[in-house]
Amino acid sequence: MRKIPVSILGATGTVGQRFVQLLDGHPWFEVVTLTGSDRSVGMKYAEACHWVLSAPMPEWARGMTIVETDPKTVQTPIAFSALPAKTAWEAEAQLAQSGVLVCSNASAYRMQPDVPILLPEVNADHIAILEHQRKRREWSGGIITNSNCTCTGMTIALKALHDAFGVEKVFAVSMQAISGAGYPGVASLDICDNILPYIAGEDEKVEQEPLKILGSLNGSEIKFAPLVISAQTNRVPVTEGHTVCLNVKLNSKASAEVAKQVMSAYRPPEVCRDLPFTPKPVIRVLEEVDRPQPRLDRDFGNGMVTTVGKVRSDPIFDLKFVVLSHNTVRGAAGGSIYNAELAVAQGYV
Amino acid sequence: MRKIPVSILGATGTVGQRFVQLLDGHPWFEVVTLTGSDRSVGMKYAEACHWVLSAPMPEWARGMTIVETDPKTVQTPIAFSALPAKTAWEAEAQLAQSGVLVCSNASAYRMQPDVPILLPEVNADHIAILEHQRKRREWSGGIITNSNCTCTGMTIALKALHDAFGVEKVFAVSMQAISGAGYPGVASLDICDNILPYIAGEDEKVEQEPLKILGSLNGSEIKFAPLVISAQTNRVPVTEGHTVCLNVKLNSKASAEVAKQVMSAYRPPEVCRDLPFTPKPVIRVLEEVDRPQPRLDRDFGNGMVTTVGKVRSDPIFDLKFVVLSHNTVRGAAGGSIYNAELAVAQGYV
Amino acid sequence: MRKIPVSILGATGTVGQRFVQLLDGHPWFEVVTLTGSDRSVGMKYAEACHWVLSAPMPEWARGMTIVETDPKTVQTPIAFSALPAKTAWEAEAQLAQSGVLVCSNASAYRMQPDVPILLPEVNADHIAILEHQRKRREWSGGIITNSNCTCTGMTIALKALHDAFGVEKVFAVSMQAISGAGYPGVASLDICDNILPYIAGEDEKVEQEPLKILGSLNGSEIKFAPLVISAQTNRVPVTEGHTVCLNVKLNSKASAEVAKQVMSAYRPPEVCRDLPFTPKPVIRVLEEVDRPQPRLDRDFGNGMVTTVGKVRSDPIFDLKFVVLSHNTVRGAAGGSIYNAELAVAQGYV
Amino acid sequence: MRKIPVSILGATGTVGQRFVQLLDGHPWFEVVTLTGSDRSVGMKYAEACHWVLSAPMPEWARGMTIVETDPKTVQTPIAFSALPAKTAWEAEAQLAQSGVLVCSNASAYRMQPDVPILLPEVNADHIAILEHQRKRREWSGGIITNSNCTCTGMTIALKALHDAFGVEKVFAVSMQAISGAGYPGVASLDICDNILPYIAGEDEKVEQEPLKILGSLNGSEIKFAPLVISAQTNRVPVTEGHTVCLNVKLNSKASAEVAKQVMSAYRPPEVCRDLPFTPKPVIRVLEEVDRPQPRLDRDFGNGMVTTVGKVRSDPIFDLKFVVLSHNTVRGAAGGSIYNAELAVAQGYV
Repeated sequence: MRKIPVSILGATGTVGQRFVQLLDGHPWFEVVTLTGSDRSVGMKYAEACHWVLSAPMPEWARGMTIVETDPKTVQTPIAFSALPAKTAWEAEAQLAQSGVLVCSNASAYRMQPDVPILLPEVNADHIAILEHQRKRREWSGGIITNSNCTCTGMTIALKALHDAFGVEKVFAVSMQAISGAGYPGVASLDICDNILPYIAGEDEKVEQEPLKILGSLNGSEIKFAPLVISAQTNRVPVTEGHTVCLNVKLNSKASAEVAKQVMSAYRPPEVCRDLPFTPKPVIRVLEEVDRPQPRLDRDFGNGMVTTVGKVRSDPIFDLKFVVLSHNTVRGAAGGSIYNAELAVAQGYV
Repeated sequence: MRKIPVSILGATGTVGQRFVQLLDGHPWFEVVTLTGSDRSVGMKYAEACHWVLSAPMPEWARGMTIVETDPKTVQTPIAFSALPAKTAWEAEAQLAQSGVLVCSNASAYRMQPDVPILLPEVNADHIAILEHQRKRREWSGGIITNSNCTCTGMTIALKALHDAFGVEKVFAVSMQAISGAGYPGVASLDICDNILPYIAGEDEKVEQEPLKILGSLNGSEIKFAPLVISAQTNRVPVTEGHTVCLNVKLNSKASAEVAKQVMSAYRPPEVCRDLPFTPKPVIRVLEEVDRPQPRLDRDFGNGMVTTVGKVRSDPIFDLKFVVLSHNTVRGAAGGSIYNAELAVAQGYV
Repeated sequence: MRKIPVSILGATGTVGQRFVQLLDGHPWFEVVTLTGSDRSVGMKYAEACHWVLSAPMPEWARGMTIVETDPKTVQTPIAFSALPAKTAWEAEAQLAQSGVLVCSNASAYRMQPDVPILLPEVNADHIAILEHQRKRREWSGGIITNSNCTCTGMTIALKALHDAFGVEKVFAVSMQAISGAGYPGVASLDICDNILPYIAGEDEKVEQEPLKILGSLNGSEIKFAPLVISAQTNRVPVTEGHTVCLNVKLNSKASAEVAKQVMSAYRPPEVCRDLPFTPKPVIRVLEEVDRPQPRLDRDFGNGMVTTVGKVRSDPIFDLKFVVLSHNTVRGAAGGSIYNAELAVAQGYV
Repeated sequence: MRKIPVSILGATGTVGQRFVQLLDGHPWFEVVTLTGSDRSVGMKYAEACHWVLSAPMPEWARGMTIVETDPKTVQTPIAFSALPAKTAWEAEAQLAQSGVLVCSNASAYRMQPDVPILLPEVNADHIAILEHQRKRREWSGGIITNSNCTCTGMTIALKALHDAFGVEKVFAVSMQAISGAGYPGVASLDICDNILPYIAGEDEKVEQEPLKILGSLNGSEIKFAPLVISAQTNRVPVTEGHTVCLNVKLNSKASAEVAKQVMSAYRPPEVCRDLPFTPKPVIRVLEEVDRPQPRLDRDFGNGMVTTVGKVRSDPIFDLKFVVLSHNTVRGAAGGSIYNAELAVAQGYV
């Protein structure tokens, strides 16, 4: 089988680097195009990119020449977008129109009614809205997005509970890694021996995106799930891995024990059970009182698995627990790759 | 005016060191006795103590000889206790019986019905229970405690709201400094590039102690305040300063603006307004979207002021906001000293 | 006595903030002018400045309006410069010409033959070259500089040894705090769980500046001291305090014991022994095997004291030891203030 | 081919954990025995071990029962020792006598004349002294050691230079990771926002071990290489990876360019070129001015490769450069495994 050629848009940033690293040796996809900003166009990737990952830069990427983000230079069936939100709006649309399926990590299109925020474990069926999107916008390609990196793990955990008991209300307090802010991102003087209790736009995303992802597809429309989320997001001195403390009110009561069983037993929809990036298991539930911890648990299952721990009954709501997810893998580049695999498996590419 | 001689019990630990540092130059108190464990009895303080504070060890302390924690060696009217919980139970009682007023940072006696957990800004009147304690236990001295370091800041902030609007329910997620765990305390491999989502016994203390502190004194009994708290406590890589994210449900509605005014305007009871360690203001409310931050705000007002920020309306409850308090100053040694000052001002010494 | 009005040039950066903080309550100087870049001119200091110090911003500074760095707006006898090197060259000269004595922390003029790099403890006499500078450049004010922050502590320690035994050769390996890079400065992803073995231009400064400072003034010329330094400079995850490991070859042998005595006993020149910012002692020599440590020792003597530890004989050269100096206090803003005090004491203002 | 059964002595500590992780899936060795202290004997590994590695604990290890370190319980041809130095002396000798080849990471036997400190890239021939050791001590097994983790990388780099130009004198200043101190090891309050300029016994090891490793085997004796090393060792807030700054004096001059070529071109002895843990290349020389960095470079080549950077001429000696080595992989467990592979390849097992 010949591999499908793919592009990475905005390949020099932290999420772009994750795409390069995670697509190294991918069984279906082969990176043939790397795009960058005007500053880096024409340079070799190894020169243009200030690499910040622990895993070394793959050899094949070092010598690739950075090109513009444009339909003339990006002509692969799939493009992974790590573009900044402001340039994503126009660039992704141009590519979608020219026939590229853009699997985007940018927030630009997430809340558009005809664009799905896909977490295959949760709402693989939402991909069908792509047909409506193509028709309505006269695009031969299209745009599918993954969620904000803080929403990812918590929405996957909430999905299992929502299916079983109905989720009504959620308090979410996050402790997020610095890699989530890109590069140079957070200044060291702001985070060394410190916490930042503010991330621009993040509370809003955490309060809104899960409602769409957990919603139901009704013809050409996604009906938002009727839960309410209250979020407080924080930056902490951790390199990778977002931790979220949740308090959850359910429609029908559930003990901590049953909730743990339900989350452990959660299976993704049939179609995305054996894709290359399918997390196994979808949710890993830990019993140790002091887990999950970002340094110890973020890399489990190559960073694609959502880890839940400390599930216990809540004195006000029903449950409290902690979710950990690798923000630049499952929550960003890895999630987009998983989405692209779903699109291929479903015949959208 | 002659200064009142005082002792520090358990002077070599992290809280003991804070007592030494904060009592350096205190206008009312003079440290004459330092106690330690068997290992350090007979040694000079400078030898016995692995000093971990940024502020240098005061010269007067260096040459003091460590003695046992015993009524024979501790004969000052006031003793500040930084004893570990398990030795505090017996040692503090012996001293209380022998005539010493023990101002304790240990948790051993906090939940005893005749022992007050004092935050002078909040419940200065609870000190009156000392008379009942002395009678009942036949102690000529007594024991007063300060709260758990995570409870301190949040209870002070909640007090202002409770007086004005009534507090019903509270979700509290903490991000706590490593100094709270003593020395050696948290292993560096456990917290470097990491978060620990567990602190033994801490969730329980945060859920219970504020109810007693916010309660009302009824003769010889403290009636707990009827609010419910749900806590999730975490350790983060920060040296000093506990940050707590709160979601609060009130009896009567209040906008964020009004809540801020109420907290800013909160004044301590008359009797403790001008003690040497009185925080000024009691609550400092910040308007910046990215504050409070532990490194920038913990030392405000010599570490005695409670800082509140990010007060906003909550989509589920009424308010959400962030509280920061210096855990080894306001939340530990400084709090005990403030309590002792109150006891002196009220004639209990 | 009326205080001398002073200006701070580049007041919003990390060193500018240190000037603001250290001049709060200074017995001789009163800050009347704060300058900033075009972006911040016209704004209140509290709005324009992203404050990064643990000590809170002084109240008097919050409402001051930022002005341009220009002879029209800067009309105080003394100006403290925290300007970036590239703008310092022109701006400092204009002010010097217009009558201002610029006490500069910038590197622009340090290696100019008629500009002294002053560490009052070491080379207070070099200030006399100011007369030559004024004549030659037709300036009624002038420029005096302090050294690079990594050079400061090590040059002070070497001075004591140089006077007593003659220093021939020095290996210096630094571990430098992130505050030395300004704000935003070092990206958190570059330094969290990491070391940066490179600081642009720093090896060169450490190899050259001490030779000038330790040199002798010969009429209008500073004759460089004939020692050789080899430097390797590194950035480490520490907020404040530069640590330098030194190996030193002397002209005449000295044991570690004698070297310690010589450094402990070192006294600054008479004229700068009792200025407000005079460090007391000049050099603090510690005996503990695990000191100096930046978090524990940087703030000693309000951050103005140089701390030396681990003095021992060297198997190749004569001595090895470790020097710690507070990089934004003694090594930057505090050093410039000390220089200004010397200039006032010597009648240059 | 059947795998060789092996034991891990002291399997619950940080180096023991690395052995477990690195032997997971090893092509030649299969772990059948895990030993631990009295406290953990009889417990399952998953219960007894406070796992601190980012890579998850292998499934096969979780249920293994910890046994004593004793010839009755350890009966494999090879045992990997992560014992603390004090228990290693007796336990390793007993096993060596009973027929086990102990590949030890402990320092106990390193300086014994008939025990080699092996770095296969450097002194594979030293393994021959094992025959002399067996005869002299009447052991049917034996002990081979790997070097102190700080010595490893620098000795490999120095070997290449020593062969080509002769190394005379070396200044070494280290910045070492916290994992090198085991668990709980360094207290977080000692290293958060701090540096520790002292590691017990470390300066001495760095000054002595390389002389033995670089020495020549002369019949039954290792003649130490005649170079002199002066070391200053420091602990920094980094999880994994020891960085060492070196200044080197050579017998015959070499430019930085030639030195880089020599190190890049260095090949291990024939016999250890294709073992499973052979680093490829032995030395990786980087050209970037700001490399090596522990977070970016420690994992290169699965943590077995020594990375050298910043090679430049030295104003006092001949060369200065920086070496990085993964301290718990190449410098500890991985090094011992590589030694065991050499022993098997040479017929000593």
